[in-house]
Order: sequence, then C-alpha cells, then structure tokens
Amino acid sequence: MDKAMAGIINVTGYAGIECARLLSSHPQVTLATVTGRSAAGHRLADVFPHLADSNLTIEEKLGEVDIVLVAMPHKESAREVLSLIEKGIKVVDLSADFRLKDETEYNEWYGVSHPAPQLLSQAVYGLTELYRNEIAGAQLVANPGCYPTGAILAMAPAVKQGLIKEYIVVDSKSGVSGAGRSLNIKTHYAEANEDTTAYALEGHRHLPEIIQELGLLQPDKKMRITFVPHLVPMTRGILSTCYAPLAGKITAQELKQIYSDFYSEEPFVKVTDTPPHTKHTRGSNLCLIHPTVDGRTGMMVVISCIDNLIKGAAGQAVQNMNLMLGLPETAGLEAVSVYP
Amino acid sequence: MDKAMAGIINVTGYAGIECARLLSSHPQVTLATVTGRSAAGHRLADVFPHLADSNLTIEEKLGEVDIVLVAMPHKESAREVLSLIEKGIKVVDLSADFRLKDETEYNEWYGVSHPAPQLLSQAVYGLTELYRNEIAGAQLVANPGCYPTGAILAMAPAVKQGLIKEYIVVDSKSGVSGAGRSLNIKTHYAEANEDTTAYALEGHRHLPEIIQELGLLQPDKKMRITFVPHLVPMTRGILSTCYAPLAGKITAQELKQIYSDFYSEEPFVKVTDTPPHTKHTRGSNLCLIHPTVDGRTGMMVVISCIDNLIKGAAGQAVQNMNLMLGLPETAGLEAVSVYP
Amino acid sequence: MDKAMAGIINVTGYAGIECARLLSSHPQVTLATVTGRSAAGHRLADVFPHLADSNLTIEEKLGEVDIVLVAMPHKESAREVLSLIEKGIKVVDLSADFRLKDETEYNEWYGVSHPAPQLLSQAVYGLTELYRNEIAGAQLVANPGCYPTGAILAMAPAVKQGLIKEYIVVDSKSGVSGAGRSLNIKTHYAEANEDTTAYALEGHRHLPEIIQELGLLQPDKKMRITFVPHLVPMTRGILSTCYAPLAGKITAQELKQIYSDFYSEEPFVKVTDTPPHTKHTRGSNLCLIHPTVDGRTGMMVVISCIDNLIKGAAGQAVQNMNLMLGLPETAGLEAVSVYP
Amino acid sequence: MDKAMAGIINVTGYAGIECARLLSSHPQVTLATVTGRSAAGHRLADVFPHLADSNLTIEEKLGEVDIVLVAMPHKESAREVLSLIEKGIKVVDLSADFRLKDETEYNEWYGVSHPAPQLLSQAVYGLTELYRNEIAGAQLVANPGCYPTGAILAMAPAVKQGLIKEYIVVDSKSGVSGAGRSLNIKTHYAEANEDTTAYALEGHRHLPEIIQELGLLQPDKKMRITFVPHLVPMTRGILSTCYAPLAGKITAQELKQIYSDFYSEEPFVKVTDTPPHTKHTRGSNLCLIHPTVDGRTGMMVVISCIDNLIKGAAGQAVQNMNLMLGLPETAGLEAVSVYP
Repeated sequence: MDKAMAGIINVTGYAGIECARLLSSHPQVTLATVTGRSAAGHRLADVFPHLADSNLTIEEKLGEVDIVLVAMPHKESAREVLSLIEKGIKVVDLSADFRLKDETEYNEWYGVSHPAPQLLSQAVYGLTELYRNEIAGAQLVANPGCYPTGAILAMAPAVKQGLIKEYIVVDSKSGVSGAGRSLNIKTHYAEANEDTTAYALEGHRHLPEIIQELGLLQPDKKMRITFVPHLVPMTRGILSTCYAPLAGKITAQELKQIYSDFYSEEPFVKVTDTPPHTKHTRGSNLCLIHPTVDGRTGMMVVISCIDNLIKGAAGQAVQNMNLMLGLPETAGLEAVSVYP
Repeated sequence: MDKAMAGIINVTGYAGIECARLLSSHPQVTLATVTGRSAAGHRLADVFPHLADSNLTIEEKLGEVDIVLVAMPHKESAREVLSLIEKGIKVVDLSADFRLKDETEYNEWYGVSHPAPQLLSQAVYGLTELYRNEIAGAQLVANPGCYPTGAILAMAPAVKQGLIKEYIVVDSKSGVSGAGRSLNIKTHYAEANEDTTAYALEGHRHLPEIIQELGLLQPDKKMRITFVPHLVPMTRGILSTCYAPLAGKITAQELKQIYSDFYSEEPFVKVTDTPPHTKHTRGSNLCLIHPTVDGRTGMMVVISCIDNLIKGAAGQAVQNMNLMLGLPETAGLEAVSVYP
Repeated sequence: MDKAMAGIINVTGYAGIECARLLSSHPQVTLATVTGRSAAGHRLADVFPHLADSNLTIEEKLGEVDIVLVAMPHKESAREVLSLIEKGIKVVDLSADFRLKDETEYNEWYGVSHPAPQLLSQAVYGLTELYRNEIAGAQLVANPGCYPTGAILAMAPAVKQGLIKEYIVVDSKSGVSGAGRSLNIKTHYAEANEDTTAYALEGHRHLPEIIQELGLLQPDKKMRITFVPHLVPMTRGILSTCYAPLAGKITAQELKQIYSDFYSEEPFVKVTDTPPHTKHTRGSNLCLIHPTVDGRTGMMVVISCIDNLIKGAAGQAVQNMNLMLGLPETAGLEAVSVYP
Repeated sequence: MDKAMAGIINVTGYAGIECARLLSSHPQVTLATVTGRSAAGHRLADVFPHLADSNLTIEEKLGEVDIVLVAMPHKESAREVLSLIEKGIKVVDLSADFRLKDETEYNEWYGVSHPAPQLLSQAVYGLTELYRNEIAGAQLVANPGCYPTGAILAMAPAVKQGLIKEYIVVDSKSGVSGAGRSLNIKTHYAEANEDTTAYALEGHRHLPEIIQELGLLQPDKKMRITFVPHLVPMTRGILSTCYAPLAGKITAQELKQIYSDFYSEEPFVKVTDTPPHTKHTRGSNLCLIHPTVDGRTGMMVVISCIDNLIKGAAGQAVQNMNLMLGLPETAGLEAVSVYP
C-alpha cells in the first residue's frame, strides 16, 4: 500500500517541528510538505539541524496531501482549517480553535469572534483515550491543549465514577517549552532558569477545556474547578497534581483499581504504584498516572505526567492522525523515554 | 559593646554552612566556633571555598559561646540541645526536635522516642512573624521547617480571620538543596535535572507543623490540611501554592488588604500584586506572598515563596538569634536577592 | 532469520541502562538477559520505569546469548570478558580494560595489574569510523571512552593528513551523566547545578586513548596532546573544542573539504557549516564536527559534539554489535535527536 | 562626610541592574538617579522586584550626580559619555567604547566610526588589578569586557614573567546572562537549556581587548592569541581555561608561586590549589585562578573564574568607582559567594 502523505502548517514552532520529528520516522506516513512564514524558502534541515536528513524546503503554501497537522496560533488556524476542510482534506488542528463546543465560550476566552463556527459541531475533541471511535471517523480533530491532556486523563476515571464531591484543584508544573518558541522575557534563559512561578491566576485559556470535558463525563454534577499553571526550569514535561475532596469513603487501593480498569487497554496511559517523574515520559507519548487518597482528610490526590510536546501536542496529533488514516494507533510513537 | 559569640553545630550540611555564610558578615555577632563530624580537623575554608576568608577550623567539640545554632539531624539534635540548655546557653535548633508541642505526635511522625521531652514546653516555635515576643525571651527556639515557613506565612492571615471553610491544600515546589547535602539517588544530578516529581504522598514530616500552627490560629475550627511537596530542578527556592474553599464571599482586593494589614510591619514579608518568583527571594531572607481569589469557584489561592536555605532555614535562625540577643532583627540579613 | 540474542552485564549504570533502552527497540536483536549486583532479583521495569514494557528481571548471572555488552567498571570488567571470550561469546566491552594496546600503560594509568593481558592483542578499538572492518571480524571490541570518541573523530582527518605542527589541546565540556550513576558529592544536584569546573588536570584516564589513536594515524610524528575535561550543568552531551597550530597554510574551506571527504560515507558523522550544539545530538548516535581555521594565528579549531551516553557509550556499542553480527550498522540507531 | 551621589544610565540591562543592586547596599555611595528607555516612567521596584525597597523611578534623563556608571550598548554609550565628561562628571563606562586604545581597531571590530575618539587617550582600562593608580586619578574608566577580565587576570602573571612561547588559547565557558537581557533565539530558555555550544569562531569582539592588554605586558613579544567563547546552561559565571606552550621549564609549584606573588595584595583575586568552580564566585566580586603545568607536554594551563555580572561587569565597575571617589576599594563588595 502507498504511504499516506501528510503536511504540517507552521512547522517552525515547537509543536510543529515536533510533528516533523515524529513523522520523519513514521513507518506508514510520509511527511510530504511543510509550511512556515518567516522561514519560508529555507531548507528544513538548515533551520532545524536535528532534522539534518530531511530534504524538505519550508514552503509558503502546502503541497498535495491526505492529511494536515495545523500548528498555527488560534484564530489564524481556523481560517486555514476551513479551507482544508472544504477541499475534503483531513485535519488535526493543534490550535485551540475547535476544542470548545460553545462558540460564546470561545469568543469570551480568546477575545475574538470565532472565524469558522460552522465547523464546531463536526470537530471531535482529540483526547484519544476518550474519543477513539469518533476520531477514527472524523475529518476534523481538535488536538487538546497540553495542560488539559494531563489534567483530564488524571481526573476522568474519578469524575466518571462519581467520586468527586465538588471542588477540583489542578496544580500544574510545566517545562518552559510549553510557552512556545516565540521570544518573551518570561522565557529568556536567565529569567526562567533557577525560577519557579505561577501564572494566569485570573484564568488560563486551558481551563474551559478542562471544565467542558470533565463536565461531559458527569453532566448532572456541579464541579468547581480551579486550575493554576506554573513554570518550572526544565525544557519538557508537565506534572499535574490534582486534588478533590471525595464524596464518600474509598481506599487508595480501590481507587487505583478504578484507574487501572479504566485505562487497562490503553497503549499510552500507565497507572503507576509510585509518584511519577516527568523524566520518565520525556521523548515518549506516555501519560503516567498515580492516584491516591489522603486518608486523614478524605482528599483524593491524582498526579499525572506527560511530555508536553509529545502526548501534550505532537504525539497526540500523530496518535489521532493514525486513527483517522486507519493505521495502528501506536505507529511512529514507539520511542521509549530518554532517561536520564 | 563586645560582639556576641556564636557557634554552629554540624556546619557541614547546607543549613549549617548557610548559617556560617550569614554569620561571616554579621555586624554584631562573631562566629567563634563550628563543629562537624566527618570533616573535623579541616579548615572551614578548605571544605567550603566560598568561605575562603574564614580562619575557623571544624572542631569535634564546641568552644565557648553565647548562642548556638544547631544544624543536626532530628533526634541527634535533641541530645546536643539538652546539654547546651543545661549549661545556660541560648539555642536555635534547626532540627525538627522541638517544633511539635505534642510528644506523642513527634514519636509517631519521627518513629523514635523524643530524647528530651522535658524541653518541649519551654521551646518557642521560631516563626518570627508569629512569635516575635516569645522568641525574644526564649532560651530555646525551634526553627521551623522550610515548607512550614512558606505555608504558614501564606495561610496565617486567612486562617486567623476565619476565611477558610474546611479544606486546605498546600502544593509546594522545592529546589533540590532542600533535600540536603547527604548523597541520595534522588538528588543525583542526572536524576533530578530536567525532572519534576511529587514525593511523600503518604504524609511528609512537615505536615504536623503546619497543622499545629494553623490550628493554634483557629482552635475551634476543624481544618483538613493536605500537603504535597514536589522537587523541581533548581538549587534554591520553595514556591507554595495554597488552595482553600472560602467560607464566605470576599474579593481579591479585600483579601489583599487583610494580608497587607497583617504583615504591614514585617521587614521580611512582602505582599505582592503579581505572582511572585522564587528568583526574587534567592539569596535574601524575604518571603513574598500573593493572595487572590478564584471568583468562579469561591477558592482562595495564596502563593508564597522563599529561599529555602535562608528564610526557610539559616536566615530565619539568624533572625531569631538576633531577637534572642536583643539585636536589631534585620542585622546581617540585609542582602538583596541575587537576580537574575 | 532468528533474531540474535544479546545480554548486558551490569545494566544498572547509565551506560548499561542506555544499552537496554536502545536494544529494547532494536529490530534485529533481542535483549534476552541482563545482570546487576545490588538490584539483582528486581524487575528491570521497576528499577527503571522508562522501560516499563520490559519483562526482564535483573539477574546475578547471564543467560544464554550470542553477544554481550559489558558495562562493568574497569578491572572487574576484564574478568567477566575473559570468561565470555573463553566460551566463544562475542563481547563489546564498554570499560577501559581493552582500549590500550600497551599493558604497562594500562597498569600505570589505572593503578592495577591488567587482569587479562592475553586478550589485548585480539581486542579491536571500537571507534567504528576508524576500524569498521576489524570490528566486523572481531570477537572482542573495546568500546572507546566518551571523551576519546569526540576528540579522536574531531582530530583524525587533520592528523592523518599531517596538518598538525605539534601541539594539540582538547578542551572538553561534558554533561554530568558522564560521571556515572554512582553517588558522589561532585554530582550531587545542588553542587553540579549552576556550576562549571575543570577536573583531572593531572591527567585524565581517557588521555592515553587519545594519544594512542591519534599516534597510530601519524606514527612518525611527535604530538603533544593536552586534554582538559570540564563538567557543565546539563545531563547529556560532550562538546570538545580542539586547538592545534597548523604545520602550514590552509583555509577554512580547504579544511572543511578534507573533513567532508574523510567522513563522506559515514552514517553517524556530519560535518557542519556552523558551530554545533550538543542539543542537536541528544538522543541520537550522531557526531557533529565543525572544523575551522583562525587565520590570524594559524590555529586550527575543530569542534565536535556527541551524546555521551549514545555515540559516547551505548550507541557506539550497538553500532559495533551490529557490525559483529553482520547486521546493518544503523539498525536500532535511527532515532533523531530530541530537540529542543 | 556626605555620601557620594551616583547614577546609572540604562539600568534595565543585566549589567545596569546589577550595578543598581550593588549600589543599593553601598555604605558610602547613594544611588541617586537611574535612566532607561523603554521602562522610563516606571518605578525601579516594579520592573525589578528584587529591588523592592528602592524608591527610584526610571527616568529619561539623569539627575545630578558625582559619578555615573554607563551601561549602554557600544556607540550609543560614547555619546553619553562625551556629554558627561564635558560636564566634568566622573564616568565608568561599561560598554566597549573606550577599551581599545587604537581607534582603527575599534572601527574595524565594531563596524562603526568611533563617536568620540578624542577621549580615547584619557580613558583608563579598568582592570583594577593592573591599573589601580591610573584609575584612582581618572575621570573616565573603560570597564573591561567580561571575558577579558577573566582571561587577562589568568594570563597576566605568566605573560609579564615571559613564560609564554608564542601561542595562547583562551577557551571560555560563559553562563547565559552574559548574552544580555535582550531577547534572542539563542538565549530562549528551551534552546539554551541542556545545550553547550561555541560561537563567534570568526573572532569575538573581546579578542582585541585581550590582545591589547597582554601585549602591553610584553611589548616585544609576538603572541598568537586564539579565543573561543562558549555558552553553557547556567545563569551566571565564566570559567576560562587558558593554554600556552611554555618557553622554558617550570614546575607547577614554581608557577603557583609566581601567581601568588603577583596577586598577594589583591582583595578580589585568589590563587587556588585546586580547579576552581564558578559556583564559588557567584554573587561575589572574586576572581579565582588556578595555574598549573602539564609536565608531559610543556603546556601551561591556567583556569580562572568569575561571576560575569560582578567581577565581569558591575562589581568591577563599583570597584573602579570606589577608587575614583577615594573610597576603600572593597566598599559595597564584601558579599560572600552564594553557595550552593
């Protein structure tokens, strides 16, 4: 069988170039064409020496493809996606544009009018573990944000099971690559190194995604979700520590069983016996989850970690792409974490 | 007036050597004698080149002094302290041995019989901002743990004011020096670098300190406190993000006013308008606190940060020592944070 | 064809466990058995969670295999190797025991009597690019040290071509994983982080390897080689900056051509137009080399970089193993560097 | 006596703000006025929270002062300096504009016509240890570059003594703050973290400074100096490893004696018995120097380290300012390095 032909729009950000790295060794898909703006006309291998063996040139416009991974900023992405969908091309959109079902929510959180609201109903939220079947049949998949990926996978089994009383706190610690490749004083080396800080206390744009998806798992329950992201001085990785007062009594062992059952068939989610390390996910598509109970207080504590650029972005996009193309879900994603 | 003479027991750990650094430039106290075990007989300047100008030799036994900073591990510390107290010498104990008022709590959390329970009633908990007067008159001060220092300062104004409903979550992110100078695979460079992880989910020994001190501020209120410490890849600094559902309605502005009033006279606590950075405390005795309210959920969020080796250990010990000696509280602690 | 069966002796150091990671996804070799000392009896996946999918248990004694990668400390390694060689098993030895041809040199640098000098003549120095044919036919390959790998690849073309006057300086900057997984105050996180230092100024044990191999390329020339290793605060990577006064005039362009020709057929060596970054080799078996000339002074400057655990250890071992087994040299080593 | 009044032009770069930090606790100088461009009108304490106690506002134009530290980029600096000198104000210029004696050298290396060549003859090169007397009497001091400070201090005793044959290699490893506070992809966190690289192989602008100053110590000797700077992933610190074939025989012990004698009276230079660590200079004005000899090859190896923002910039500026104002040279510079 011929390999499928894939393209990447805006390959020059960290999510885009990570898609290129993963596709460069994908056994059943060929990366045929990539676009960029400032770097258009340059060889991909010159701008990104780790892809030295690539023969691609960064183009202004995409060539012919079966599927496209779109790694544009929000709003700009929707316009590109609309045009691709109209041509009948399959799309995994890594931006935020098609993640929220509710157009007004989008308009409020992103401060712009949604450029293509007519696509919202057909877009499938691309958290593979929750929407595997829908993704396989979709033309448009909205790849989740990095924080929501870790947070929703951490909380879904407990929320679905109805274990949560009301409050949920998601305290996330992200490596600095999560802030992207655009220059900013906050991600200037001497500022971010040897520093830890919280940000977006007034409400991070990934919060409505988390609310939407956990809400869909328990439509009748009111949940109060607080999400605080932090930057920690490392390049890759997100560790999310999630806290929720339990509705009833449950032991750590019972909780672990619920999680193990929920994820028993998942190739990329592992429930661990000990607190996981971001290092053990770096370079892989894994999500590690450790659920436990603070018996003194009746508080559930669940910790998840992922590589923000892989399971939190490019890897999950490839995972979704595989499903959309009818390929094995793990194709091109077998790499083991690079430890130490 | 003659300068007071101070000694340090077990100078070779990170807390002990940081006491030595601070005392080396203290205007009104002379560091007269230091002890260590494995390094006894060596010049301090040879073992710790940053103190190249010191003429001290690391001794097995302490010389004559007015006050001693004890930086031993728990249990061993109590024995040293007992002997010093009996001789009428003032002591700041940096170990955990005299922090908990309740002997049985100590025995349970530390898994040993308290070696000097008779001193518990006279020991003053050395969180300077809460016990300034008692410290000034004490012979024995129990210097708080690094995590409790940040957590209690973050929560005290809200707890005292009765703002908290019931649950409190303290999610702390610590630099690796907090784990001490003893070798351990968890603090081996290639393991800790580029990694974030949680630990002590079954209950960290600093938790009972936090419970004790917040409880004393609201004796009639049942509080459920969950504390999860994390290691992040930096040398110094603790950032604690504290979450608590509010008992009633309060705005972020009102909350900030409560905190500003509570700490208005404090030389080393600053209430900030924006989320603080550990970098802005590194090398100084400051505690930065940012209180806010998540209006959507009724959750109070308070973030504090400190340099774990200064306000979290040696700096606070010097601050307490100053009070015990009748010196200005800020003497020897004026250093501005080293940014970037 | 059946897959070859490989074993690893002392899998628990960084070199050993990196061999395990690479073999875990090798298409034509099965990792059949691994040994360790302190961790014997534990599942490999429990000690090293990034290898969660492994079913191996760490054994005290090796099972049946076609080839063994030995990752023991020097001296202890030779004894294991001797026993394997006598049984007719192929061996890649990652220790220093069979790198030096001259037994007295070994005894002097390592301060012990060589435990198996009778094997020295048959051992092939495993710098694949220089000894490809000999390696293919060898039963025992002595895998080079991490520093010599980068230094010799950087200097070999110039030395062979006779461009060097007399002096060679190799100034190497290594990530901290190069110091191994054994605990040491120098590799304690808070000591190594935010620090750069030189070490082994009296002569590092990797120096005689460099002298031996560059000497073999120009037996009639006296070269004076100075090698100074440094530790820099990162986990993986070695960058070596090599300086040598030129014997005659040559332009940077001509020099680059000599290097490009020398390495034109090499799958894992790339000559670059700009100074290379260790980051562009991390996670891959690449060696990047940038040769240039300081025209003002007649000084040749050649910079190389590698991932010390891959091309500097486990990757090169697998590269050699592939040749010894008659497999494609690049099998199992196709991973692209993990950037950023 | 009234305190002297000092000003800082362009306080918002790393050198400028470090001057402000040092002056904020200077016992005999008051920081009276600071300027900045983009941040003009803001309170210094708001832009730089570590200076929370400062009451200064960043101005567009300087107020009245006795002495000014100018931290502008080259060329722009000269214009400011000219105007200050004409008003009779003392100036320490941290830019490169008055470091080179030879106007044509400046024009060539900086690619601009020198804006104030008439001041070149009166400017004193501000390497305090070499020009103490001249600095004390100067109106204009050209503060050295960070790399030249470490390199010249490392090589001066040997060059002055005539120990060097001809070639000198300076291999410097700098923390990332040396690249300044302006945004650049090279100093973007995810790019610079976990990376080591060389740069400016075609000739760094600090090279002519090194050539000029070492040349002045041995005017009759031809020296061939090669300088290669590297970026290593830490915030502060420069370690320079200097190599030079020796003209004659000398032991490491004799060499050390020469260095100890040369620097015996220096408050900020220490000759060490073991290879120094940048960590032991961080936060202090120290330069640590370790000279040795590679007896096998007749190569002298001298290693120096400094905090690039203190002895390599702001600290040395304050040291020079002290001399120019007739104050004790060490005033305001007594801080001990912050270890670990």
